[in-house]
Amino acid sequence: MKSKATFYHAGCPVCVAAERGVADAIDHEKYDVDVVHLGQQKQRLGEAERAGVRSVPALVLDGQVFHINHGADLSALK
Amino acid sequence: MKSKATFYHAGCPVCVAAERGVADAIDHEKYDVDVVHLGQQKQRLGEAERAGVRSVPALVLDGQVFHINHGADLSALK
Repeated sequence: MKSKATFYHAGCPVCVAAERGVADAIDHEKYDVDVVHLGQQKQRLGEAERAGVRSVPALVLDGQVFHINHGADLSALK
Repeated sequence: MKSKATFYHAGCPVCVAAERGVADAIDHEKYDVDVVHLGQQKQRLGEAERAGVRSVPALVLDGQVFHINHGADLSALK
């Protein structure tokens, strides 16, 4: 069974670079990668917060949060 | 030809979590992943700095630096 990877971003330049770099580099044989634009999918902000995401871009792998560089704080997206 | 991924760390808990998460999730079919412990391989500090690494853990993919969470500033390792 594949593990779950969720990449949260907000379309910012730092986010796009991280998506093209890190999210694309993830092994898609091992992970189902879900890419979520929190600026456009505000209904998923709560889910991101509960996962521990404080800023974007962030990658959640098996429930563990990795903040990658810094584009925007989550609070700026509300 | 495979692309080059270099994961710089310093053995800190934040680093180890990022290595087990992000570095292990990288597609090894697409990337040759080099894991560098800068605490033990201080001769590679200069190379990391030139690549733009400011703190560990950091992942350099095709020359682009992604700082993942924050374990230690590079200056603390000198």
